[in-house]
Amino acid sequence: MNMYELTVPQLIKMLNNVDRWLGAAIAHAEKKKFEVDNLVHFRLAPDQFALDRQVQTLCDNAKFMAGRLAAKDWPAHPDTETTFEQLRARIATVISFLDSFKPDDFVGAEDRQISLPWMEGKWMRGDEYLTHFALPNFYFHVVTVYSMLRNNGVDLGKRDFIGGVPMRS
Amino acid sequence: MNMYELTVPQLIKMLNNVDRWLGAAIAHAEKKKFEVDNLVHFRLAPDQFALDRQVQTLCDNAKFMAGRLAAKDWPAHPDTETTFEQLRARIATVISFLDSFKPDDFVGAEDRQISLPWMEGKWMRGDEYLTHFALPNFYFHVVTVYSMLRNNGVDLGKRDFIGGVPMRS
Repeated sequence: MNMYELTVPQLIKMLNNVDRWLGAAIAHAEKKKFEVDNLVHFRLAPDQFALDRQVQTLCDNAKFMAGRLAAKDWPAHPDTETTFEQLRARIATVISFLDSFKPDDFVGAEDRQISLPWMEGKWMRGDEYLTHFALPNFYFHVVTVYSMLRNNGVDLGKRDFIGGVPMRS
Repeated sequence: MNMYELTVPQLIKMLNNVDRWLGAAIAHAEKKKFEVDNLVHFRLAPDQFALDRQVQTLCDNAKFMAGRLAAKDWPAHPDTETTFEQLRARIATVISFLDSFKPDDFVGAEDRQISLPWMEGKWMRGDEYLTHFALPNFYFHVVTVYSMLRNNGVDLGKRDFIGGVPMRS
């Protein structure tokens, strides 16, 4: 197993899924005749990130995950998005970044020492970082965006969450 | 990398996290003087599983994931839970099942052919099943339970979601 396979194709797929959910929200808003960008400030709890920051955060989670595991620099994003279309553009830049990775970039990634700012000099092995922090954190924000849109009546279902899966015969 | 490390310890940790969130909901209900089991029917969208079924489903996702990857039978659960305490007991049985696995059970799991009922005879390789279906699906239901409780005022935060991470020095 190469850590590329455990990350990059799936991250790209999920980012494309989120982009489609935002598109579905735009269609929903047009149909119901409200301004879709009203939703960027929506929260499921008052002390939780709003939808805009959830999308920004999942974008960062994806770029950090690939960048840290492959020890490559990532593009900076100043978190200035205030509209659905800007959030979709942010997602597109992260997909483009992820597209630049090759499986060879992840050789040895499972043994790489990953240290995050809050770890005070301690570190996780690459595979531990992926399993215990990076993937749960990414899915946390992805599912939260999905739930926010579902809670606001956007027409989405479980298949829209999972997306396509590779099937062999 | 052994697929045990990518699954079992993290699944157990997340199930323990969910159990603690349910405990926090019980404490919240006692403080606010409402019947906690009122929450088992809560939904974030009217055409979504209620909280009880979200917990049952994440329990199944965890046992299926380990069982399928290691080609071991799993215990049956008839989905009869109607209270928080019964849901916590369900979680405990799944943790106990997961505790029975050893890393050796997962040798070759990444190449195992996994076929699900809806796949009509097609299959995914073990690592594809894990990455594209099993983990996203598990986290979908875990995060949804978290969001449901947060939406109802239960005092939880991101650290309660992530739980402890292995740190080395």
